[in-house]
Amino acid sequence: MTDRIRDYLRARRDLGLDEGPVMVLDLDVVRDNFSKFARALPDTRVFYAVKANPAPEVLRLLAELGSCFDTASVAEMEMVLATGATAERISYGNTIKKRRDIVRALRLGVRLFAVDCEVEADKILAATAEAGVETADVQVFCRILCDGAGADWPLSRKFGCEPEMAVNVLEHAHRLGLQAYGVSFHVGSQQANTEAWDGALASASEIFRECALRGIGLSMVNLGGGFPTKYLKQVPGVETYGDSIFRALTKHFGNRIPETIIEPGRGMVGNAGVIEAEVVLVSKKSEAEDEVRWVYLDIGKFGGLAETMDESIRYAIRTDHDEDRMAPCVVAGPTCDSVDVLYEKNPYPLPVSLSIGDKVLIEGTGAYTTTYSAVAFNGFPPLEQIVI
Amino acid sequence: MTDRIRDYLRARRDLGLDEGPVMVLDLDVVRDNFSKFARALPDTRVFYAVKANPAPEVLRLLAELGSCFDTASVAEMEMVLATGATAERISYGNTIKKRRDIVRALRLGVRLFAVDCEVEADKILAATAEAGVETADVQVFCRILCDGAGADWPLSRKFGCEPEMAVNVLEHAHRLGLQAYGVSFHVGSQQANTEAWDGALASASEIFRECALRGIGLSMVNLGGGFPTKYLKQVPGVETYGDSIFRALTKHFGNRIPETIIEPGRGMVGNAGVIEAEVVLVSKKSEAEDEVRWVYLDIGKFGGLAETMDESIRYAIRTDHDEDRMAPCVVAGPTCDSVDVLYEKNPYPLPVSLSIGDKVLIEGTGAYTTTYSAVAFNGFPPLEQIVI
Repeated sequence: MTDRIRDYLRARRDLGLDEGPVMVLDLDVVRDNFSKFARALPDTRVFYAVKANPAPEVLRLLAELGSCFDTASVAEMEMVLATGATAERISYGNTIKKRRDIVRALRLGVRLFAVDCEVEADKILAATAEAGVETADVQVFCRILCDGAGADWPLSRKFGCEPEMAVNVLEHAHRLGLQAYGVSFHVGSQQANTEAWDGALASASEIFRECALRGIGLSMVNLGGGFPTKYLKQVPGVETYGDSIFRALTKHFGNRIPETIIEPGRGMVGNAGVIEAEVVLVSKKSEAEDEVRWVYLDIGKFGGLAETMDESIRYAIRTDHDEDRMAPCVVAGPTCDSVDVLYEKNPYPLPVSLSIGDKVLIEGTGAYTTTYSAVAFNGFPPLEQIVI
Repeated sequence: MTDRIRDYLRARRDLGLDEGPVMVLDLDVVRDNFSKFARALPDTRVFYAVKANPAPEVLRLLAELGSCFDTASVAEMEMVLATGATAERISYGNTIKKRRDIVRALRLGVRLFAVDCEVEADKILAATAEAGVETADVQVFCRILCDGAGADWPLSRKFGCEPEMAVNVLEHAHRLGLQAYGVSFHVGSQQANTEAWDGALASASEIFRECALRGIGLSMVNLGGGFPTKYLKQVPGVETYGDSIFRALTKHFGNRIPETIIEPGRGMVGNAGVIEAEVVLVSKKSEAEDEVRWVYLDIGKFGGLAETMDESIRYAIRTDHDEDRMAPCVVAGPTCDSVDVLYEKNPYPLPVSLSIGDKVLIEGTGAYTTTYSAVAFNGFPPLEQIVI
C-alpha cells in the first residue's frame, strides 16, 4: 500500500465513485521493482512477463526503463510494440503456438522462441518459410521441466521436457537451420526457496555440455520467473535471489557463465496493486454461538481473485477495524457459484466489527488479477483497473 | 450435436473463419428442453438460471415460450427485460446483494427475492423504503442448506442456512412486513441422483409446518436447479426427475402441495452448445515409449472450460479420427499457466492419429462456458458464441 494509492482511493470514495471493486496500481512501485531486479542481477536481461499485467501504462514504463518482454500471444506482442519498444526486445515464451501465430510473430520482427519438443521447432521452420524470414536469424531455446517444489502456485508438467530430451530438441532445431540458443526453466510461481534455481541450473549446464559435444554452442539460460511478491507471509528480497542465482551459475558454469534472462511478472507488479472491495453481507449458517461467520465481498474467484484456487495464495486483507478483536471467517465472492469461495478450509481472521458496506483492501494484487476476470459471469463486469 | 451445428461449423471452415475456438448453440435444442421441463413438471413454473448462458437469443426464445428468469445481478435483469419479458417473471435469486442493487431491482419492478439470513431481509426492507415500494408487495423466500451429495459440481455451504434457522429468518421477514413466501434449496449442479430432492423437501415441509404454527402461511417451494446435461456419462431424463420430485412433494406435503418453481440452467442449455477447438500441439515430455501424450488445445480453463476445475466435468471430446486406436492423453489449454490443464489425473482417451491442426468438438458446452471466459488472459480473447 502506498500513499498515492491511499489518496486515490480516498478521492474515489469522496466523489462517490466507489460503486464496484477496483484495483489501483502505483507505477512508482513498478519502477522501484525494476531497479531492484537490475541491481540484484546486473548482467541479466529482464523480460517482463506481460501476462502478469498487460496494462499499457505498465508496459510503457518498463519499455522506457529498458525492459524486454516475455509474451504468450501475438496480442501481447502488439501491446508491447504499441509502447514503441522494438521487436528485438520480445520473446515468444509460450511453448504452445499455432503456426499462423508464429508467422505473425516473425512478421512483427520477433526472433526469439520457446520450444519444448521437436514438432514445435518444425512449426517454427515452416513459419519462417511462410513469413520469408532467414532461418538462421531465429533463436530457439528449449524449456526443461523443473519440479517446482517450494512454490505457492506450483507448476504442473505442462511446460518443458525432461532435460535429457532437451538435447535432442536443440539438436533437431540446429539441424533445421534454426539457432539453438539456450535453455529455459521455471522454478514455480511465488517461489519462496531462493535455492530453487540450483537444481535447474545443474541440468542446464549438463545440456550445454552435451550440446557442445554434438558441436552446438548454446549461449543463453532463461532463468524464468518465480520471484515472489509479499502476500501474508514474508518473502526474501530480490537481492537474496540474485546472490543465490549468481552462486548457482558460478557453481555450474564456472568461469563460462552464459548470457542470462529473467522473466519476472508477479515480482515486478504484484506489490504495486491494491484492490478495494466492499463487504456485501456478513452472516451465519445457523444460530450456533461458535459458528464461523461468512463474509461475502463484491469480488471473488471470477472477478479477479482466481489465484485463491485451492486457497494457494493468501492475500493480506486490511480493514478499518483491524485494531478490534479478530475472529475466523469464511470469505466468499458475490456470484451465485458455490466454488466462488476464497478461504474456507483455512478460515481468515477478520475483525468482529466488520459489517455490511465496509471497505476492505486486498494487497499485493497487481499481478494475475485483472486479466483473470471473467467477461461477465453472473452479469458482473470484469475488475476495473486504475494505473496511477 | 445437431445437423444445424454441423452445417454451421462446416460452412465456417469452408469460409476460412475457423481461426479460434467457437461455441455454437442451437436454439431448437433449447426449445425442446423447455418443453421437456414443462411436460415433466406441468404445475411448476420454470425460472431459467440466466447465469448459465445469458445470450440475448436464448433469453428471447425462453421469454416467448413463457419462461420466467432467475437472475444473479441487476445486469442480468436488464438483459431479461430487454427481451420484452415483464419484471413479474424475474426473481433475484442471489442471496448476496448490495442494498443499492436491491433498490435498482425494485425500481425495475422485481418483487421476488432470495435471502438466507435476517440481515438480508433488513436490507430488502431498507431498499423498499428507498425505492418507494410497498413492503407487503415484496415476496421473500429463504434458501436452506442441502448436502449436494451425488452432484458433479457440488455446492459448498455458501448459500442457504440450516433449516431450523430458516423459520426464524422467514418470521423476521414477516415481522418486517415483507411477504414470507417460501423456501428454496439447490441439490447441487449436474445432480445425477433423481432422489436428491426428497431430503430437501422433507426439510421444506417441516419449515412450512413450523411457520404455520407461528401464524405465517408459506406458499412456495423453489426446487432450484441441478438438472444435468449429458457429458460423457449417461444421465436420467427430465421425466424421471419430474416423477421423483412429484412423489417427494406428495410424500411430504400430502394433498397441500405448494406452488413450485424450478431453476434449470445447465439442463436448459448445456446440450444445446458445442465448442469447436483446434489441436495446437501434441507432444511428449520424455522419449519413453509408454509416456502419455500431451494434447494442447486452443481452449482451456481460462477460455471457457472453467468447469474442468478438479476435473469435475468430463466433456465428450469428438474428433474426425474416433475410429482409430485410442490412447490416454493429458489435455491442456493454450495459456502460459500451468493450472490450465483440463484432464491430467484421469487422462483422456484420444485417437493416436490426432495431430496438430485437427479440429475437436467438445459437446455439452452450452452452459457455463462463454461467461466464465477470462477477459484477456495471456492476450487471448474470450470464447466466441454463435447462436443459430
